[in-house]
Amino acid sequence: MKAKVAINGYGTIGKRVADAVALQEDMEIAGVVKTRPSFEARIAKKKGYSLYSASEDNIADFEKSKIEISGTLDELLDKADIVIDATPGNTGEEYRKLYQEHGIRAIWQGGEEHELAGFSFNSEANYDRALGRDLARVVSCNTTGLVRVLYALDTAYGVKKARVTLMRRAADPNDIKTGPINALVPDPIKLPSHHGPDVNSILPDIDITTMAVKTSTTLMHLHAVNLELKEESSQDEIIRLFEERPRIRLVNSKDRIKSTAEAMELAKDMGRPRGDMWENVLWKDSITIDKGELYFFQAIHQEADVVPENVDAIRAMLELEMDGAKSIEKTNKALELMTS
Amino acid sequence: MKAKVAINGYGTIGKRVADAVALQEDMEIAGVVKTRPSFEARIAKKKGYSLYSASEDNIADFEKSKIEISGTLDELLDKADIVIDATPGNTGEEYRKLYQEHGIRAIWQGGEEHELAGFSFNSEANYDRALGRDLARVVSCNTTGLVRVLYALDTAYGVKKARVTLMRRAADPNDIKTGPINALVPDPIKLPSHHGPDVNSILPDIDITTMAVKTSTTLMHLHAVNLELKEESSQDEIIRLFEERPRIRLVNSKDRIKSTAEAMELAKDMGRPRGDMWENVLWKDSITIDKGELYFFQAIHQEADVVPENVDAIRAMLELEMDGAKSIEKTNKALELMTS
Repeated sequence: MKAKVAINGYGTIGKRVADAVALQEDMEIAGVVKTRPSFEARIAKKKGYSLYSASEDNIADFEKSKIEISGTLDELLDKADIVIDATPGNTGEEYRKLYQEHGIRAIWQGGEEHELAGFSFNSEANYDRALGRDLARVVSCNTTGLVRVLYALDTAYGVKKARVTLMRRAADPNDIKTGPINALVPDPIKLPSHHGPDVNSILPDIDITTMAVKTSTTLMHLHAVNLELKEESSQDEIIRLFEERPRIRLVNSKDRIKSTAEAMELAKDMGRPRGDMWENVLWKDSITIDKGELYFFQAIHQEADVVPENVDAIRAMLELEMDGAKSIEKTNKALELMTS
Repeated sequence: MKAKVAINGYGTIGKRVADAVALQEDMEIAGVVKTRPSFEARIAKKKGYSLYSASEDNIADFEKSKIEISGTLDELLDKADIVIDATPGNTGEEYRKLYQEHGIRAIWQGGEEHELAGFSFNSEANYDRALGRDLARVVSCNTTGLVRVLYALDTAYGVKKARVTLMRRAADPNDIKTGPINALVPDPIKLPSHHGPDVNSILPDIDITTMAVKTSTTLMHLHAVNLELKEESSQDEIIRLFEERPRIRLVNSKDRIKSTAEAMELAKDMGRPRGDMWENVLWKDSITIDKGELYFFQAIHQEADVVPENVDAIRAMLELEMDGAKSIEKTNKALELMTS
């Protein structure tokens, strides 16, 4: 029998996780929850997902828009084994109470604090610690991207120190309200930024500090990474290490991928749903050892990289698979993640 | 008698240096050189600058546009004491030969290599080494901005190590041909970038590496700076150190300057010509000591920060003033640089 997954919040992350879950052999979508009728609600119906209203109050809205719904969030929670919470931030406490009342396992996204779930998840770094858990948080897109490379490097060489500048996309492509159009915005201005401590919620022993800046772009985040490793390495060894990781895609500027825009074009040309890039896009020809320190650039698709992690988190918490590497393999295979 | 300054190349930098030179008590503009008639040529005439054609071939163009010229570059070089070369890159060798034939001192900009002049200039770091020189290069906007802070910190505490991410404006505001509109472009992809070695052309002993990324903005560059100092310091001490520097403007995000866009608005509201910000704009509330390392953000107005440095370079090379601090004071006073 397939595990039944509820998706609470069918926006940027929720709709992507729903589609990824639907592709897995051991899971199915019990229903997706939206607050308001919208083109996304209509498309959810077309895909065959049962649609639920976030509350009683919104039912009339859906009726007016002639979008058939199957009930409310409350009703859905009784039908599912686990809920993916992809609601906007700052509703964590309220929903945690609700989920616990319904005795349903829950997975939050990186917009919520570590403390809400008491456990932060990354497929490669701590799958086994998620086994059987009731609550978890899949860390943010930036943190997920950092943990993927840091976990790999820390396991192989030990990371002595990580200093990272995050150039953040300012808004998602469909967001017409957010700026800046033409500026660079240190954010937060207070240093170091919260991204370092967030990495430590999964890899507590790594000395990492981060500086973050909002940039006038919508496509991807870009990380400028500077590391000191405990053991010596070489450019070739680092390339081989990353090549073996399940969710790092090495690209080469000689192959005409020189920017986040071309990295996104690559995902589209590969036929990815919504043009999503689930992997870290890491520039092979940026990997450099200089005066004993490691440098590289990687790009992170903010809408997509946490999607396979959510799928693995479901599998771990419901103990559908006890071995993390095998879950990653299943997820990747169902998504055609590294083979495409 | 005032020193006579020729400006070869009346574009983004040339026109700004011309105006700054014209404001100095000990200098005057002998003439400015343009290749083609343009609105900038017309405005130069209105300002009272004698206009010269880059070559004989272009004279007809100016005549057709009814812009009166006073002769050619060749003629101008015989009338001036020093030439500011603000021509587009890659013409250095050719012009060096010409300048030497005319026996005129010359100052290039950061687009040219250190080797062309054999000497790279920054007002605070090495004014005395420029005294009486025939050839010099004022380093690029980014390098100037870095040298200002690094020289101050190195003198006070010793800089053990500097790791800087440069988020570069992709194009100047008047440049309609250059992208990207919506992307982040690691540039160069090969690490570390050339900006570190360029800093070393002035401060040879500082261990600095840099990573640079082109961002979709036209206004200013932004530097994310991470430093290890040789001697311990504190946030307050660093703030005091920067406050005393002649070309560092400390700003505060609480004062509603949270981005490069607001920093530029500040320059406009101060009544600066062309809205220019000649100083490093350094966020006071970003200055942080964390685990013994120093962090801060600064923004650099790429069109403007080298302008006062060019003025000081003229003064040093023509020995109009033997003391660098005094030259800086004169330049700043004439521009109303730190008093505004």
